[in-house]
Amino acid sequence: MKRIGVFTSGGDAPGMNAAIRAVVRQAHALGVEVIGIRRGYAGMIQGEMVPLGVRDVANIIQRGGTILLTARSQEFLTEEGRAKAYAKLQAAGIEGLVAIGGDGTFRGALCLVEEHGMPVVGVPGTIDNDLYGTDYTIGFDTAVNTALEAIDRIRDTAASHERVFFIEVMGRHAGFIALDVGLAGGAEVIAVPEEPVDPKAVAEVLEASQRRGKKSSIVVVAEGAYPGGAAGLLAAIREHLQVEARVTVLGHIQRGGSPTAKDRILASRLGAAAVEALVGGASGVMVGEVEGEVDLTPLKEAVERRKDINRALLRLSQVLAL
Amino acid sequence: MKRIGVFTSGGDAPGMNAAIRAVVRQAHALGVEVIGIRRGYAGMIQGEMVPLGVRDVANIIQRGGTILLTARSQEFLTEEGRAKAYAKLQAAGIEGLVAIGGDGTFRGALCLVEEHGMPVVGVPGTIDNDLYGTDYTIGFDTAVNTALEAIDRIRDTAASHERVFFIEVMGRHAGFIALDVGLAGGAEVIAVPEEPVDPKAVAEVLEASQRRGKKSSIVVVAEGAYPGGAAGLLAAIREHLQVEARVTVLGHIQRGGSPTAKDRILASRLGAAAVEALVGGASGVMVGEVEGEVDLTPLKEAVERRKDINRALLRLSQVLAL
Amino acid sequence: MKRIGVFTSGGDAPGMNAAIRAVVRQAHALGVEVIGIRRGYAGMIQGEMVPLGVRDVANIIQRGGTILLTARSQEFLTEEGRAKAYAKLQAAGIEGLVAIGGDGTFRGALCLVEEHGMPVVGVPGTIDNDLYGTDYTIGFDTAVNTALEAIDRIRDTAASHERVFFIEVMGRHAGFIALDVGLAGGAEVIAVPEEPVDPKAVAEVLEASQRRGKKSSIVVVAEGAYPGGAAGLLAAIREHLQVEARVTVLGHIQRGGSPTAKDRILASRLGAAAVEALVGGASGVMVGEVEGEVDLTPLKEAVERRKDINRALLRLSQVLAL
Amino acid sequence: MKRIGVFTSGGDAPGMNAAIRAVVRQAHALGVEVIGIRRGYAGMIQGEMVPLGVRDVANIIQRGGTILLTARSQEFLTEEGRAKAYAKLQAAGIEGLVAIGGDGTFRGALCLVEEHGMPVVGVPGTIDNDLYGTDYTIGFDTAVNTALEAIDRIRDTAASHERVFFIEVMGRHAGFIALDVGLAGGAEVIAVPEEPVDPKAVAEVLEASQRRGKKSSIVVVAEGAYPGGAAGLLAAIREHLQVEARVTVLGHIQRGGSPTAKDRILASRLGAAAVEALVGGASGVMVGEVEGEVDLTPLKEAVERRKDINRALLRLSQVLAL
Repeated sequence: MKRIGVFTSGGDAPGMNAAIRAVVRQAHALGVEVIGIRRGYAGMIQGEMVPLGVRDVANIIQRGGTILLTARSQEFLTEEGRAKAYAKLQAAGIEGLVAIGGDGTFRGALCLVEEHGMPVVGVPGTIDNDLYGTDYTIGFDTAVNTALEAIDRIRDTAASHERVFFIEVMGRHAGFIALDVGLAGGAEVIAVPEEPVDPKAVAEVLEASQRRGKKSSIVVVAEGAYPGGAAGLLAAIREHLQVEARVTVLGHIQRGGSPTAKDRILASRLGAAAVEALVGGASGVMVGEVEGEVDLTPLKEAVERRKDINRALLRLSQVLAL
Repeated sequence: MKRIGVFTSGGDAPGMNAAIRAVVRQAHALGVEVIGIRRGYAGMIQGEMVPLGVRDVANIIQRGGTILLTARSQEFLTEEGRAKAYAKLQAAGIEGLVAIGGDGTFRGALCLVEEHGMPVVGVPGTIDNDLYGTDYTIGFDTAVNTALEAIDRIRDTAASHERVFFIEVMGRHAGFIALDVGLAGGAEVIAVPEEPVDPKAVAEVLEASQRRGKKSSIVVVAEGAYPGGAAGLLAAIREHLQVEARVTVLGHIQRGGSPTAKDRILASRLGAAAVEALVGGASGVMVGEVEGEVDLTPLKEAVERRKDINRALLRLSQVLAL
Repeated sequence: MKRIGVFTSGGDAPGMNAAIRAVVRQAHALGVEVIGIRRGYAGMIQGEMVPLGVRDVANIIQRGGTILLTARSQEFLTEEGRAKAYAKLQAAGIEGLVAIGGDGTFRGALCLVEEHGMPVVGVPGTIDNDLYGTDYTIGFDTAVNTALEAIDRIRDTAASHERVFFIEVMGRHAGFIALDVGLAGGAEVIAVPEEPVDPKAVAEVLEASQRRGKKSSIVVVAEGAYPGGAAGLLAAIREHLQVEARVTVLGHIQRGGSPTAKDRILASRLGAAAVEALVGGASGVMVGEVEGEVDLTPLKEAVERRKDINRALLRLSQVLAL
Repeated sequence: MKRIGVFTSGGDAPGMNAAIRAVVRQAHALGVEVIGIRRGYAGMIQGEMVPLGVRDVANIIQRGGTILLTARSQEFLTEEGRAKAYAKLQAAGIEGLVAIGGDGTFRGALCLVEEHGMPVVGVPGTIDNDLYGTDYTIGFDTAVNTALEAIDRIRDTAASHERVFFIEVMGRHAGFIALDVGLAGGAEVIAVPEEPVDPKAVAEVLEASQRRGKKSSIVVVAEGAYPGGAAGLLAAIREHLQVEARVTVLGHIQRGGSPTAKDRILASRLGAAAVEALVGGASGVMVGEVEGEVDLTPLKEAVERRKDINRALLRLSQVLAL
């Protein structure tokens, strides 16, 4: 393999740049050229490509977002679109791809593998941590710490006003962020999509907490845990609550920012491993870190199998939120 | 004066604790006792009081929120409520009050002065910076920096996805936060309540910016700048926009957190000055910092006169956001 | 077991308070009383004890340092001292201990187990990560991120002045902090105690880096990696360096601060697990997290067996620092 | 004036990039071209120049350091060197200069004005705040907040171990950073170059503090306040101290990092004002912000007149550190 392409796709995640840097420099060490494809699949179809040398990725390990940009592409969802993309890759002499992103990115990559025989190795870059085959995805640790910092701030107000705050964090289908943020933030209640949320039970926990002398409380709600998210949950129990309550939706601040040490290291490790795997002949797989070791998982499994949250930690959070 | 009371009221602001610490220690240096009144006017009516010694305020200068708590009080809005409050103050031997808060706090304080002759000196503690008689209020600098950090994060995503973000910051009647955050955050548009907002003009600025090659933009909107805030403004121009746009409401994260150096110093200075003024016989005034010097302003003026935003900075932001 | 004691000892580490909170609340859930012992072994000998209820540990999960304080004790190093300590524990009705700290703490704990049959379970609280039996110690992740933030700042100056910076991080006997910080900070060279450091080789790497067009470089040095630390290493190669170089010793800023999400979660989990183990009859063991699961390791092994750094990551850092 | 040059020189300061951005965009608005001169006076002599358009300064307002780099130049200290520099400026068609830096930068600029009649306007960019003619210099607010964050961390350890910490901050000739950081950090003692430091008096303050029950203390020392800095001061009093003490030198971490809102706004305002002044015919002056308004001061005064620290704040810090 003489030349590979790398791109980012889907929602941006802190650490994507660290992964791009690792891809470029590991490839260089192996004597392989790297072409950066801009704007994900949309740019692939348009042939938006730029050679990436070792100096082009200097001083980006600490930057949030992605220097390769990201975009949605309706066209790539069609067979014609993908054929166009493949033609552009061929024209550019690209013999293999490193795809950095989440499940949408990997579904697209699978099509390229299956329809055109293009070798692709995936790197899990998404704040949601909802990919099977890696204990953590790149960006998750940063997103959790960013949300936690916001909660620490809100707690100052919650405590000063003796209020309950319902804080919505990202997670339409998975409660990873909510669980870690809730446990680390000392939340009284953590609502995740993986477990049924009973508004009445939530109200009872909050009332019991008040009776025990706790004047302010934090409820962390994954956006997909309840219809309408945090606002929906509060609306469902407001009449049962004796105390004042407020809603805050953290939103896009969870996506950006300089990556944590952990995300930079994970991205460096997986970016380099992806190149090694690709050059070594692997395809249709995602690199991940499982119990501290780099591991390969078929892309199909990565997106189809469900990784569960740690239910023991969820129960622990209830014990500790006395 | 042998004994004074101190309380916080209204929305909490970072630096309130630093002000409480300064009040207690400056009073101690002058041989005056301090009683902390909890939960603002509500607690005053209930007689929730606690003596504050110099060690009681140790290690709080860096804490957000207020250790004295804050609350709303419907009862204090009535003459009977205020009479009750005054009776409690008298019973506790409190001869003067330091009131830390915003315009609502000071309107209440004025009533105590006028109806009962209770000496009161106000300390401007509110993130909104909307008090006449001080260049900055305690908490404003921290709120601006917190919002700015959020905008820096969002810009990573805005740049990566080449989108426009409409970011709503606090400010129902005043654009101080929006102006500073927008200028420091490199926003293309800053919408403030002090100037009319023309959706069409906003759309034109954004389109022109796109034509000049700027792929992503930030619009900072004070919550009171347009009906419906940031979401309202976006809705009004969405049809005219060629690019994808998103809304983020920063909300309560702007209130909390450890105060900046500037807010701690301002709070220390004004807290101490309030005690000196009170002990020196002042009443019905607010201490403020004007052009670097401590100054006294009648409470009536502080809440009724309007402090304008710096229009030159608003125009500068347009020049710089090319 | 009706009543247990908890204490912190040795250098403070972010997350110790989260561990104390978890010990108290998990014990409460199991119907066990908790006594907090202040100032480590020194306080144990003096009988400095205070009952800890669930509300006493409210609002501490986010605080750095340790509310139980920590101290050195020469007296506890003697048999007489330990006999006194044991007598105090007995007098207080303490039937088991949770010891939060590092290897010095655990050596002391082992003596109590062996000489007096006092049941003790250890919780690994140290920023150094140098304990066998847990993948990470409480405080390590925070220390790494704090040091990384400092390095990100220094890189601004290094790049602007085109200089080399030698940055010393904590680690007298172990290179865990240096490795993670160096890899995440994009350091050209990482010097750790686990591998011989050849000044000439370091100089060559830096010169080669300059020749390739890299104008500024970062060298991360664990304090025990070379005699004299970062300053010693620089002195040894200064004559070979063509470029300006500076030394910065990060020092105590690495110890404090609000713990990261990861440290709070690890501390919560291990604090609770320690109580469960102790109540379940365990003694002379340390709770740790190994490959995602809670595990018990004999205290003797925890302090005597050597945990190695990840050499593959050290090599990766060299590939990526092109 | 059709074309102006801009450069940064001396130690880097957070906000220099925001100033460069403002210079470029304000000049563009006035129809004036901007040439960036790299590496300060050294690069000026070498003719290292690059045109700067409005898009070249996009996305730098939040970056620490300086994109134009900075360097020392021995050659510029000679008349021949300056003649060479002037020749390069003429060859490039540069009709005026904006010089961003501190007193060394301005002394150099004065020579260009006096020897060659080159119009120069200075912008105060230095963390030290030691320039007459502006209330604050660009970078000062960020440096103070960075140092304060470090002190907040160290206090966790100081409190946990009940120790005294001597923390050295930047300031060889001026105590601005030490005073603000010390007051905001609740330091027991603040040692500045502007006032004599009596080691015995320092020891007495610390001992008195211990007697009053304060177990840990912070002493903030400007590097030029005492021979040997913080370590020198501690050495001078160690024998008189009953408590354990430690020294931490904050060093270069104070220089870098993303600028605060205040520094970005100040830099934006002064960068733009410098262009307006230059184009309007001013020369040999520095733009500054005095009591909220932009002001011009002769460069000679800016570097020769002494700006004093606020002695009232220094005394206040003693009252508040009870």
